[in-house]
Amino acid sequence: MSTSKVSRRLTEAAAPEVNDIIFKPRLDGFDETFVPLGDINKAHVVMLAEQGLIRPEHASALARGILAMEDAGPGAVPLDPSREDSYFNYEAHLMDNVGADVGGRMHTGRSRNDILATLDRLRGRAVLLDLVDALLRVRETALVQAAHHADIVMPGYTHLQPAQPITYGFYLAGVAQALERDTRRLMDTLTNMNVSPLGAAAFAGTPFAIDRQRTADLLGFDTFVDNALDAVGSRDFVLESIADLSLLAVLWSRVAQDYFVWTTHEFGLIEFPDSVATTSSIMPQKKNPVVLEYLKGRTGQIVAALMASAMAIKGTNFTHSGDASREGTQGFWDTAREAIRCLQLLELVLRTARPVASRAGRLAAEDFSTATALADHMVREHDLSFRAAHHVVGSVVRSAMDQGVPADRIDVAMVEAAAREQLGAPLGIDAASVRACLDPASNVAGRASAGSPNPQTLRAHLEDAQVRLDDARTTLAGWHTRLADARQALQSATRALAGLQ
Amino acid sequence: MSTSKVSRRLTEAAAPEVNDIIFKPRLDGFDETFVPLGDINKAHVVMLAEQGLIRPEHASALARGILAMEDAGPGAVPLDPSREDSYFNYEAHLMDNVGADVGGRMHTGRSRNDILATLDRLRGRAVLLDLVDALLRVRETALVQAAHHADIVMPGYTHLQPAQPITYGFYLAGVAQALERDTRRLMDTLTNMNVSPLGAAAFAGTPFAIDRQRTADLLGFDTFVDNALDAVGSRDFVLESIADLSLLAVLWSRVAQDYFVWTTHEFGLIEFPDSVATTSSIMPQKKNPVVLEYLKGRTGQIVAALMASAMAIKGTNFTHSGDASREGTQGFWDTAREAIRCLQLLELVLRTARPVASRAGRLAAEDFSTATALADHMVREHDLSFRAAHHVVGSVVRSAMDQGVPADRIDVAMVEAAAREQLGAPLGIDAASVRACLDPASNVAGRASAGSPNPQTLRAHLEDAQVRLDDARTTLAGWHTRLADARQALQSATRALAGLQ
Amino acid sequence: MSTSKVSRRLTEAAAPEVNDIIFKPRLDGFDETFVPLGDINKAHVVMLAEQGLIRPEHASALARGILAMEDAGPGAVPLDPSREDSYFNYEAHLMDNVGADVGGRMHTGRSRNDILATLDRLRGRAVLLDLVDALLRVRETALVQAAHHADIVMPGYTHLQPAQPITYGFYLAGVAQALERDTRRLMDTLTNMNVSPLGAAAFAGTPFAIDRQRTADLLGFDTFVDNALDAVGSRDFVLESIADLSLLAVLWSRVAQDYFVWTTHEFGLIEFPDSVATTSSIMPQKKNPVVLEYLKGRTGQIVAALMASAMAIKGTNFTHSGDASREGTQGFWDTAREAIRCLQLLELVLRTARPVASRAGRLAAEDFSTATALADHMVREHDLSFRAAHHVVGSVVRSAMDQGVPADRIDVAMVEAAAREQLGAPLGIDAASVRACLDPASNVAGRASAGSPNPQTLRAHLEDAQVRLDDARTTLAGWHTRLADARQALQSATRALAGLQ
Amino acid sequence: MSTSKVSRRLTEAAAPEVNDIIFKPRLDGFDETFVPLGDINKAHVVMLAEQGLIRPEHASALARGILAMEDAGPGAVPLDPSREDSYFNYEAHLMDNVGADVGGRMHTGRSRNDILATLDRLRGRAVLLDLVDALLRVRETALVQAAHHADIVMPGYTHLQPAQPITYGFYLAGVAQALERDTRRLMDTLTNMNVSPLGAAAFAGTPFAIDRQRTADLLGFDTFVDNALDAVGSRDFVLESIADLSLLAVLWSRVAQDYFVWTTHEFGLIEFPDSVATTSSIMPQKKNPVVLEYLKGRTGQIVAALMASAMAIKGTNFTHSGDASREGTQGFWDTAREAIRCLQLLELVLRTARPVASRAGRLAAEDFSTATALADHMVREHDLSFRAAHHVVGSVVRSAMDQGVPADRIDVAMVEAAAREQLGAPLGIDAASVRACLDPASNVAGRASAGSPNPQTLRAHLEDAQVRLDDARTTLAGWHTRLADARQALQSATRALAGLQ
Repeated sequence: MSTSKVSRRLTEAAAPEVNDIIFKPRLDGFDETFVPLGDINKAHVVMLAEQGLIRPEHASALARGILAMEDAGPGAVPLDPSREDSYFNYEAHLMDNVGADVGGRMHTGRSRNDILATLDRLRGRAVLLDLVDALLRVRETALVQAAHHADIVMPGYTHLQPAQPITYGFYLAGVAQALERDTRRLMDTLTNMNVSPLGAAAFAGTPFAIDRQRTADLLGFDTFVDNALDAVGSRDFVLESIADLSLLAVLWSRVAQDYFVWTTHEFGLIEFPDSVATTSSIMPQKKNPVVLEYLKGRTGQIVAALMASAMAIKGTNFTHSGDASREGTQGFWDTAREAIRCLQLLELVLRTARPVASRAGRLAAEDFSTATALADHMVREHDLSFRAAHHVVGSVVRSAMDQGVPADRIDVAMVEAAAREQLGAPLGIDAASVRACLDPASNVAGRASAGSPNPQTLRAHLEDAQVRLDDARTTLAGWHTRLADARQALQSATRALAGLQ
Repeated sequence: MSTSKVSRRLTEAAAPEVNDIIFKPRLDGFDETFVPLGDINKAHVVMLAEQGLIRPEHASALARGILAMEDAGPGAVPLDPSREDSYFNYEAHLMDNVGADVGGRMHTGRSRNDILATLDRLRGRAVLLDLVDALLRVRETALVQAAHHADIVMPGYTHLQPAQPITYGFYLAGVAQALERDTRRLMDTLTNMNVSPLGAAAFAGTPFAIDRQRTADLLGFDTFVDNALDAVGSRDFVLESIADLSLLAVLWSRVAQDYFVWTTHEFGLIEFPDSVATTSSIMPQKKNPVVLEYLKGRTGQIVAALMASAMAIKGTNFTHSGDASREGTQGFWDTAREAIRCLQLLELVLRTARPVASRAGRLAAEDFSTATALADHMVREHDLSFRAAHHVVGSVVRSAMDQGVPADRIDVAMVEAAAREQLGAPLGIDAASVRACLDPASNVAGRASAGSPNPQTLRAHLEDAQVRLDDARTTLAGWHTRLADARQALQSATRALAGLQ
Repeated sequence: MSTSKVSRRLTEAAAPEVNDIIFKPRLDGFDETFVPLGDINKAHVVMLAEQGLIRPEHASALARGILAMEDAGPGAVPLDPSREDSYFNYEAHLMDNVGADVGGRMHTGRSRNDILATLDRLRGRAVLLDLVDALLRVRETALVQAAHHADIVMPGYTHLQPAQPITYGFYLAGVAQALERDTRRLMDTLTNMNVSPLGAAAFAGTPFAIDRQRTADLLGFDTFVDNALDAVGSRDFVLESIADLSLLAVLWSRVAQDYFVWTTHEFGLIEFPDSVATTSSIMPQKKNPVVLEYLKGRTGQIVAALMASAMAIKGTNFTHSGDASREGTQGFWDTAREAIRCLQLLELVLRTARPVASRAGRLAAEDFSTATALADHMVREHDLSFRAAHHVVGSVVRSAMDQGVPADRIDVAMVEAAAREQLGAPLGIDAASVRACLDPASNVAGRASAGSPNPQTLRAHLEDAQVRLDDARTTLAGWHTRLADARQALQSATRALAGLQ
Repeated sequence: MSTSKVSRRLTEAAAPEVNDIIFKPRLDGFDETFVPLGDINKAHVVMLAEQGLIRPEHASALARGILAMEDAGPGAVPLDPSREDSYFNYEAHLMDNVGADVGGRMHTGRSRNDILATLDRLRGRAVLLDLVDALLRVRETALVQAAHHADIVMPGYTHLQPAQPITYGFYLAGVAQALERDTRRLMDTLTNMNVSPLGAAAFAGTPFAIDRQRTADLLGFDTFVDNALDAVGSRDFVLESIADLSLLAVLWSRVAQDYFVWTTHEFGLIEFPDSVATTSSIMPQKKNPVVLEYLKGRTGQIVAALMASAMAIKGTNFTHSGDASREGTQGFWDTAREAIRCLQLLELVLRTARPVASRAGRLAAEDFSTATALADHMVREHDLSFRAAHHVVGSVVRSAMDQGVPADRIDVAMVEAAAREQLGAPLGIDAASVRACLDPASNVAGRASAGSPNPQTLRAHLEDAQVRLDDARTTLAGWHTRLADARQALQSATRALAGLQ
């Protein structure tokens, strides 16, 4: 009996278009799916044997066959597109090895549908764990650099206009804080994903008294997806994952845009080594920001992958189907790997960016971004309402700009002149206060609110953030430990069944 | 001094295009933003007074002014687009009422940027709570209907082809289970959102010793967003919310598609009352499924809203800006309200859909979807491998189809003939077993796995699901209680400050 | 007989959710659809009368009734959501006025489906004509400003790094040229759209011998959509329109980004009047670029509208349905109007932007963007290969940067030193040539290729571009003339039928 | 002198992340870009020689070098990612072969930017031509099958409810008509794309007196993109192409959905051979519509590619940059190839679908979709208003449904009873007319309007459509001829320059 024939009813081979366009590409990732497919088979056979649903000798033969295939590796499996997909190719090779009668018993109480759904979750879990790892590395670098540059004063921008002086470390701490939320989202998604669909069979359960929690345990899942229709028909964990990545990509596109602008000739706030931002062949002042452009550009691809999946699944029936289950997830793996690569580049950017402290300080001193502090001082010390103080300072600044006086050269006389003009009387402000407000460093040091760039505040913030990062690392390590334990248990049970230990 | 002038520096009025296209539409939702704006002002003034950052008499006058505006309602505020947005219109009216000197002190230690960010979160929190409520209603209806129809046997489909008999209740339980994950996502987002950006000021903190946790408490936030740049520059809670809605919309589009197909003349599995699916003016057999088409179609709008926001924010600098903060969120409110409307329609669909039991049972009996159970029986009782059993059953079915015999008329003789053909020997199968496998109801009742449509299994599942739904309701009620308590505290503190109690 | 009842079969009123959520919003645009609906009715009645498909007295009564409604205006029509949509409300009011027997004859040989499809095209045509008009205004302004600033030298950027000097006029000419392609696309779409679906009836034609070309002519369509199923089932003209707008929006987002960067404190290349870029309340140096941020941000909304429509229509059956016909087009009108508003803002930006010539010239002189011209000179006059020349110039520039010498101070000695270092011998280059290459203005004037910023070349280019713009205006005027003629003919024929002339 | 060094200034190698993630993948398509890169180089060298911009002996050596590389093929070029991209690898190999001095002269008067832009258009042109060819094949098959099945009566659906009988040929003709518009769009885009950016140099032209029309001619372009900034900074031809494909994909998703529904057990209107719709392993009645699901699902990927490109380019500066030029186009090639594969599958579907005439005819006779014709008859022959006729027929149909009488068994007595009930008097209708209206075939044959399914009308329509298809083929052939002629001229000129003929 030919094992290459999936069905007795197939009286014609697939059309060449179907074979080449649809079936063949499904085998592209066989090397990657081979191991989780084997794990699924082991867990199922162990459970079938434990439940008495197949005879011990059949179970043992299956276990030996699967372990033998595992030893031989994916390269030993002859791949035939006409068998439609990875699973049928795996099964066909197993049946060649252990005989059709024994091999044919492995499929008891399950279906290709729940196998595919399980495979998607196992692969998804693995790639999300890698993503979280890459993300934590970026956070680590952001925090380290933030601490290193906690005192580097630079202009802070809103609307890309100088607004108030900040520090470069404060900026990086903000980025790290935003990345924390991305970590949380990915961790939540990981938990949502780590539930086993195995045992849902085609979509409607099975008359065999299978133990779904047992296979879930053996595969490292927390529990199983109860309703069988939902178990094979839903891939929202894929959409949720890509949504997480989309939000993350939007964030990194913004950070990349900041560096893109700051590294221009005109801003000159940040320098990159030649190894990161390539120079042009003729203009040495040029820093073609290839990495930043890549990060910005790839955001489109990541977010669009969500669109591709959502559109593929939209309007499909709520059950297993090719468009919902296969097409709706097909871009996920590449998207996740691309996101990991982008996180590596983002880490490189944060690690190698060097603030040009002199330029940053000078801009912050001259660009009038210190003016708000002067107004705040008037409110605090001279009992002006905020609006009144604003009017005085606005008048000072206007007059300084008209005379070409940079912000840090504004003196008491100019301030009092403005006060007289706006309020009808001088304020009695002292020179030291004016200087302190208009000096970017003391300006920054004067911030008193939680979450401000005041270096002292910032350093305390960074310590807390590092604790939370360490916690996240511990959580991630816990995942790896649990999964390694589960796989160890799976391997032991299979080997025991196979009589190999 | 004119309070309509935002700045001393403005020497020209905004261009008419700017006024009409940009500023004017910002005031459209003033009625909706008026209350949360007032709450923000109250919380800020109470805190300023408690911290000694404004004098008691100023604080008291501000509190009285805000409460008076609250009493007068949004309609009493003259709206002038040239003031740019809701906040400046609110402040201008307050200054008209309490005087510019006192009114101008309210803005101490904050900025329009953190006010806007706070407003977005307050409004977002309110709409998410409504969304969760609407979602729980759909789950309730799905569970009630599932219990009601737990025994209604119908064909189950994969690829829209009859696959195995299920029950209508089992289908609804699957939908309810999927909706549980949507609830979890929205609840996670709600928690993420409920953090206060107030006190971040423009983006870089303030020299005033404000108490950010205090304003957070008074506004019902769990805590505050620490880093000030991230606090005003990030709107990922909006993207996360729309992503949640997108996943939910993709789900309802699938459910709507199921009913769309099932309510056709050809399927005839579901009937709707005329109040839901309008008939045509001429063809009474027609059920124009307007609600289902609406649900499917609007999915595009919801998912596209995520795209609109992501694209608006993509590539903006990581700080406050018009495109990141305003344009990147502008579609959120309509999207959320549209999603609530769609959930109301989905609830209507689930509540009013009537399964046509006779048609459903007949289709399930005739369409060969019972055949898998016969193969499973052979595996269990006649020690066949699953693949061998499949071949026998495939042969029976083919022969039945060729002779025009419906599935439920297949008899032992036909089965044994196929066994002889495929295996070389009869199985010794008994007639009762064949009948039981091929009868849809006993077929369904024979499922032994967790999460299957077996009515007994289903009923137990539904009880658990109801418990989880009740838990979710309790959680939602807890939110409302906490927020009501916070608002009560805010109101008391403000009234005390105003000397009104 | 109640005319509010669409069907004899309707035994229940629509559910309140259906009425409020689905039917009611359909009447929102009644004022806008009233006129084209009337035109469709007139054209149909005129044709029915001409073809002898209704009796003259009935046709005359209908014509009088329609004209009377036209005179009374949309406000005179009582709107009842339970009648489902605009058309049925129109018809009901007409039947109230002319009697049910006569009024009921208007629907002979057509259906609501082809009316809706026709309405969508009439409205789409009108809005596209407005779009083209707005687009031509932007092109006009771009060309006028380009001519005005043809000699304003500024740095040209690639990767936002100074690359070669250009002129501001050259930049604007590039924008104008890109907008030409957008014009072409919109014009092509307009032609595609201007085909009549009227007479397709429900989707399958009619037994009445209607004259589809006649109604097409009366409504200003070029011809009619032949196959009736395609005529009512396809809305690709909407997708095509939004795709055109999406490409246009992506373009304007890029232009807005240029101005966004150029108007920063650090670049300082462009200034806007206060009427366009609002200043902050405290920092007079600030130019909060609200218009530019709006333009960038709204791009997301426009492109997402394409996604919304495509996703709504995706997977619907190829025929008339609510999701394909209504939901798939519902965002189009707002999107088109938003695009018109954005074009008005873009025109405002181009019209009011003032290049800061001194700053632009100084940057171009100092930022080494002139260096390429020096290498080109060596290739032309000293027989160096391009790569060799690049190496010499690269060496000069590096040395100048190391010494802090700006580009326009590089002299012959420095060049020859580099030549010796790189080639082993001096070039014999003369001082005037070095100066000419390194002076931005003569550098630009030295470009010899077609399409370059050389002011002479540019002026010739602008003249050609103006001719093409004038041609486009003529084409647009031709459209308006043709449509006015058609409407005149429609009005005359209707009045004649009504016995009014 | 090392030719592997792009710049004298590069003092560090690229970071490994940059090399592996960014540069390496750029070389993936080297085999594909090698030929058009060679063509660009040939055209440029021929022009330089003709313009006297390089010396004859240099030109000749370059021509020989390029032709030698062409003979050796892409495999002979050693690829080094550190050279950044295909062009620099090509140039480095040429310089190794002809010497750095000669090789370095090829880059005179151009830049990598215009080369890349030209390459994108050449590759885009080639793939669009393949797309049009694939599209014309689908149209051909649709027309052939439409003619073949012009008389196969089936139910026609709106809202997936039976509405009026049509023929299967009419349906296919509608699809073919829609595909005509897609052809037009692609052809328009092809014309837009076929304009040469070569000679724009970096973005600002060149001091060399190059002849841009000459290189355009040699590369088969119609003309050149005039303004140099727009020439290298715009990739709207990519967005326009993907937009075309998106519209096409939305169409095929609808057609696939029709077959998806029609091939269900319950509809049973269409059968596919096993080679197209795979059967399940157990249920022979199952036709798992893998091809249809693939077509539906991939629509998401195609439309999302537009999103990816638009989002990548959105907000980039209007000039050459990595995100606008590379990232914004990177998905185009795969998308276009995927669309070609989907067109092949669509053609397979249309070619192999077999209407089940008996089932289709029976459904059309029984499902009351013929009722509209009866109402139309009453309007025509019995002077009823359309609304009055509708009411009579509605009453007949309701009564027939209540009695379980199928549509084609309704008789004169039933009609007259309804007339008496609704109008107070019988109509005097004759039995033959009633029968003719209610017989699906004569019902269809009775349609008198242009574009209807009347087989006679349809056949005339198909002849016209075939003429337009033949015209499109001629146009496509014209493209191929023109491009072959241009390449022939390019080859001759290069060989002449090389002294090889």
